Amino acid sequence: MAARIIDGHGFAAGLRARVAEGAEALKARIGRAPGLAVVLVGEDPASQVYVGAKGKATREAGMAGTEYRLPAETEQDSLLALIARLNADPAVDGILVQLPLPAQIDAQAVIDAIDPDKDVDGFHALNVGRLGIGLDGFVPCTPLGCLMLLKAELGDLSGLDAVVIGRSNIVGKPMAQLLLAESATVTIAHSRTRDLPALCRRADIVVAAVGRPLMVKGDWLKPGATVIDVGINRVAGAEPGKTRLVGDVDFDSARAVAGAITPVPRGVGPMTIAVLLRNTLVSACRRHGQPIPAGL
Amino acid sequence: MAARIIDGHGFAAGLRARVAEGAEALKARIGRAPGLAVVLVGEDPASQVYVGAKGKATREAGMAGTEYRLPAETEQDSLLALIARLNADPAVDGILVQLPLPAQIDAQAVIDAIDPDKDVDGFHALNVGRLGIGLDGFVPCTPLGCLMLLKAELGDLSGLDAVVIGRSNIVGKPMAQLLLAESATVTIAHSRTRDLPALCRRADIVVAAVGRPLMVKGDWLKPGATVIDVGINRVAGAEPGKTRLVGDVDFDSARAVAGAITPVPRGVGPMTIAVLLRNTLVSACRRHGQPIPAGL
Repeated sequence: MAARIIDGHGFAAGLRARVAEGAEALKARIGRAPGLAVVLVGEDPASQVYVGAKGKATREAGMAGTEYRLPAETEQDSLLALIARLNADPAVDGILVQLPLPAQIDAQAVIDAIDPDKDVDGFHALNVGRLGIGLDGFVPCTPLGCLMLLKAELGDLSGLDAVVIGRSNIVGKPMAQLLLAESATVTIAHSRTRDLPALCRRADIVVAAVGRPLMVKGDWLKPGATVIDVGINRVAGAEPGKTRLVGDVDFDSARAVAGAITPVPRGVGPMTIAVLLRNTLVSACRRHGQPIPAGL
Repeated sequence: MAARIIDGHGFAAGLRARVAEGAEALKARIGRAPGLAVVLVGEDPASQVYVGAKGKATREAGMAGTEYRLPAETEQDSLLALIARLNADPAVDGILVQLPLPAQIDAQAVIDAIDPDKDVDGFHALNVGRLGIGLDGFVPCTPLGCLMLLKAELGDLSGLDAVVIGRSNIVGKPMAQLLLAESATVTIAHSRTRDLPALCRRADIVVAAVGRPLMVKGDWLKPGATVIDVGINRVAGAEPGKTRLVGDVDFDSARAVAGAITPVPRGVGPMTIAVLLRNTLVSACRRHGQPIPAGL
């Protein structure tokens, strides 16, 4: 029996709608819309697309989305000065600096400079630590989106065996922390892991976040497992000169074994921006001592 | 064949000697000994013993160990005022507040108030985050001590399967982060884990940190596994009215299967204070821009 397809695109649309409602209600109470500042340095084409999409989605959710596009040769001090201004601006609830940054800028220094209470990307070390010890903070958007899909699909995750493939700071490590906080038994696998197929075959939940196209095969999976595919890899398409997007999971073989699986595209991808909007609204609520709306 | 006994007591003595040498050399360069302030609120008997032992070990390593003993009814504001003074004192390189604290004091607020660059216990959220993303910071003493023993026993941990039993903020979670940074494949198990014996039987490294006496049995282990027992549990002894200390591992059955194992006592226990001294010296070196001595 083929796996259920987890509709990340639909879930993200629902979340965005709930954020829009919450933003409107908050605006009625505090007299302004939640504000997100997105900063782009340079002209990386992919980053330009992401930043444009983030700004647009923010405004569509009834929030104040401002894009700052700085030239590629921007010095670190200028960027830090902009961050300081945004930190001090009471109308800005969230600050996101699009990565990667040009070589003359130390990305860590920039992340460190963002007010942790406006760090809606959840990359600041203080927020990483807050997640680690169970304090309120911000969680990176992609893994939080994955967790939302998992909970919607499975309900209680307590006691389930979960394998996270990949140990990046942006996805793998925070994903493991989130699953642990839900009382799953969590294994973090990576390039040095010896027998990844055997590890995956024991898991009720597999989250693949390695950036290797079609790596996880159907025969690596336990029948009925839930598979979350974070990978977005562009590979050669069937016709010459064409490309297509695939995940880290070999969808065709995996869906024959899994119980439920996210597709690529329209799986995890749309969740990232939806959670960014969610985090921005949460930030605005916290900063004004307002309750966080249900369903976020 | 019986397991090798990992001599934590001897390893800790060696580490303390290296710290003492490093402290003396640093003093010659900066004109003062590294300083550790240990704060105790109330009269919990176990805490009094720990604080006394920490102060004494600090002074034995040639460092300036100062103990602050405050009455049980101390208000949070008074404790925070002391922390602020210690944060500002240039002769203090490390600040440790002994836990638990009396009920009228919010332990998290106290930990948050310690300058992260003097947080030699590694409990501040910023240090938890730094460990999580691979930045320099302070790592909690007990898991760092466990890692030192593991590396001394096994050398390179890359690709080894490690199971950490227990997910406390003080031991289990930082232990998992440290093992992951050494490129082990790490599983974090806990009270909700379904088949802990089977999980342990697959592991090259088992770290037990749950506080349940004699829980891990020999037949839970893969032959030749390395076992680190963080538990220190007082149980009834053989003679009436007597007690004895045991670990979370059933030492007698485990040593018949394991390749190497820490005893209780004289295993992990002595490492905690030795690493506290190490962290204090490291703090003093960093704060004065001095290199960190080798072998720490």
